Amino acid sequence: MYNEKYMKLAIEIAEQGRGKCSPNPFVGAIIVKNDKIVGQGFTQVCGQDHAEVQALKQAKDKAKDAEMYVTLEPCAHYGKTPPCAKAIIEAGIKAVYAGIQDPNPKVNGKGFEMLKQANIHLESNFFKDNITRQLEYYLKWIQIQKPFIIMKNAVSLDGKIAADNGNSKWITNEKSRQQVHHLRQEVDAVITTINTVKQDNPMLNVRLQNVFKQPIRVILDPILEIDIHCNICKTANDIPTLIFYDKSLQDKSKLTLLNQTGIQSIPANTIIANNKIFLDMDDVLLKLGALKICSVMVESGNKLNSYLLKNKLVDKLYYFIAPKILGGNFNVYDSLNISNMDDKIELSDISIKTFDDNILVSGYPVYSDYT
Amino acid sequence: MYNEKYMKLAIEIAEQGRGKCSPNPFVGAIIVKNDKIVGQGFTQVCGQDHAEVQALKQAKDKAKDAEMYVTLEPCAHYGKTPPCAKAIIEAGIKAVYAGIQDPNPKVNGKGFEMLKQANIHLESNFFKDNITRQLEYYLKWIQIQKPFIIMKNAVSLDGKIAADNGNSKWITNEKSRQQVHHLRQEVDAVITTINTVKQDNPMLNVRLQNVFKQPIRVILDPILEIDIHCNICKTANDIPTLIFYDKSLQDKSKLTLLNQTGIQSIPANTIIANNKIFLDMDDVLLKLGALKICSVMVESGNKLNSYLLKNKLVDKLYYFIAPKILGGNFNVYDSLNISNMDDKIELSDISIKTFDDNILVSGYPVYSDYT
Repeated sequence: MYNEKYMKLAIEIAEQGRGKCSPNPFVGAIIVKNDKIVGQGFTQVCGQDHAEVQALKQAKDKAKDAEMYVTLEPCAHYGKTPPCAKAIIEAGIKAVYAGIQDPNPKVNGKGFEMLKQANIHLESNFFKDNITRQLEYYLKWIQIQKPFIIMKNAVSLDGKIAADNGNSKWITNEKSRQQVHHLRQEVDAVITTINTVKQDNPMLNVRLQNVFKQPIRVILDPILEIDIHCNICKTANDIPTLIFYDKSLQDKSKLTLLNQTGIQSIPANTIIANNKIFLDMDDVLLKLGALKICSVMVESGNKLNSYLLKNKLVDKLYYFIAPKILGGNFNVYDSLNISNMDDKIELSDISIKTFDDNILVSGYPVYSDYT
Repeated sequence: MYNEKYMKLAIEIAEQGRGKCSPNPFVGAIIVKNDKIVGQGFTQVCGQDHAEVQALKQAKDKAKDAEMYVTLEPCAHYGKTPPCAKAIIEAGIKAVYAGIQDPNPKVNGKGFEMLKQANIHLESNFFKDNITRQLEYYLKWIQIQKPFIIMKNAVSLDGKIAADNGNSKWITNEKSRQQVHHLRQEVDAVITTINTVKQDNPMLNVRLQNVFKQPIRVILDPILEIDIHCNICKTANDIPTLIFYDKSLQDKSKLTLLNQTGIQSIPANTIIANNKIFLDMDDVLLKLGALKICSVMVESGNKLNSYLLKNKLVDKLYYFIAPKILGGNFNVYDSLNISNMDDKIELSDISIKTFDDNILVSGYPVYSDYT
């Protein structure tokens, strides 16, 4: 008999895999027998056990005639690991309660089908909204092959990202900046522009006491302006780094130099706007998706911020507000062509957190139909 | 024997008078006998009982040999009511615990002196920070004869006050706007510019189910541009309204018309900046102070907002943030000449409240030494 509390627990346990097993979805599984938990698991780093198998290994022969709660449909295919559905059947599980179906074309109902064929009692569609949110990076990527885009902004009360002299260090407080490192650790990649690299010479890495992952760093640098002595280049042997550049660039002499730093350079399409060359974000995102990057966090200046919002590309916003006033012209966003109130970009599913006197507003942009 | 809990209670009770007795400070008083409260009071509308007298009336003859807790030094002078110190002595109170001394030159220790002369046990200086905050409007006004200035802003996440077409209705949600009506009710006056009147045709009144007070409306209109058919003029017979104008204005024909609407027009000094004539805020504030206006809330556009911040005139900020993105150029503030991070205006003593998905950040601007 389905018991909601176990599914809640499976969702909770899944969180232990967040940021650790991409491009696999971070799933949670619980095995219950006689109202007792006899096994639990979450998806391990890519290539190792999925949640179901981890739980089965823990349950051992208690898995026989037990019930499994799992947040996502068990896989049905041989990937880096054998199909979980097969393992579940072989262990003698008698019932499976699965949160949502896995839209991965290699699964997408086939896992459920395998279980049913083996006469396992199957129910699904539990906590659909929660699990869909939880696995939002994976679900976007597996369905449209482009990464989920998170934009991070750190802004004064009045929406400025720098004082009149361009200096932005620091608007937000240390706790907020610490939180950014946690957020970086959750995503597959962090993306910025050559302008931000030139201006701030950032590392864009995770600096925490216990680091479990460095996200891939992605730099948009159409004409390969990056200084090979910058912090990014200096650390590219240790932290995977990609540079996207204009595929029709004539002078490719820098590519060798960049290659020596450990950076991987990727040619991409460009578009021309206001007489300037920009990388075609659609192409960049497809290429990132092809590299199995399911999620990126944008940490950049107002040009890229504005471009992404205007083109409705931001899936989620992390907006840090410091209670400071700066005035001036360093706006977090440029014009977004929002001519009237009806066309505003609203955030939905908002969460508001404080870090001492800083505020983090997170939410999902809802775009109007303006163009 | 002083017991902190009664002073806390007196501070709490005082709040019942907030916004109701200006220019008198809203004070709370408790009378305690044998560890029982036998009387309590808060300052009534100006001209009626002060807190101490209200508490004494409630205590009647139980006041004899009882102890009084009062947030501010009892007055020593005949104003619209007789001195409270006298009433306390006559009632036979044996000890007075007073929060802070009243800097009003007519009191300023004289109340304490009267009590001591009558051999009443006196202690003071309790919860000084809290009471100083509580009575901040009064304390500023009584000491420098200018009102305490609160600035209210209602802003999108990215610091904008309108969409590209200038429309600002509505950025914040209904609960936030409701809160603004509560805030208006707390202050003696609400101030705006002719530009805001022309653009929004506001009422600037309190619209709540139970209204206990309408603040005086103050319009800055150097060359008397106001349309006498606007909402402000149409309601000026019911709600006291002041218009400040350039004292050297030649064509005064409009004054008669304005007078007929019930508006009081006040000539003031002007200054010239960027080839434009502005009212001299220093003069305006002194004149408001002379009219016993202890507190004003500024509800205006970015010109006045920026001017007040640049001139370090804002004492307190109420900053409502709606989780919307607008982009564009309608900044809540213009340039504030903050050239580097060290010169930022920081908010101190911040409080963060939410009204559904809107955020109210309130705090006290701390200005740097930039000029």
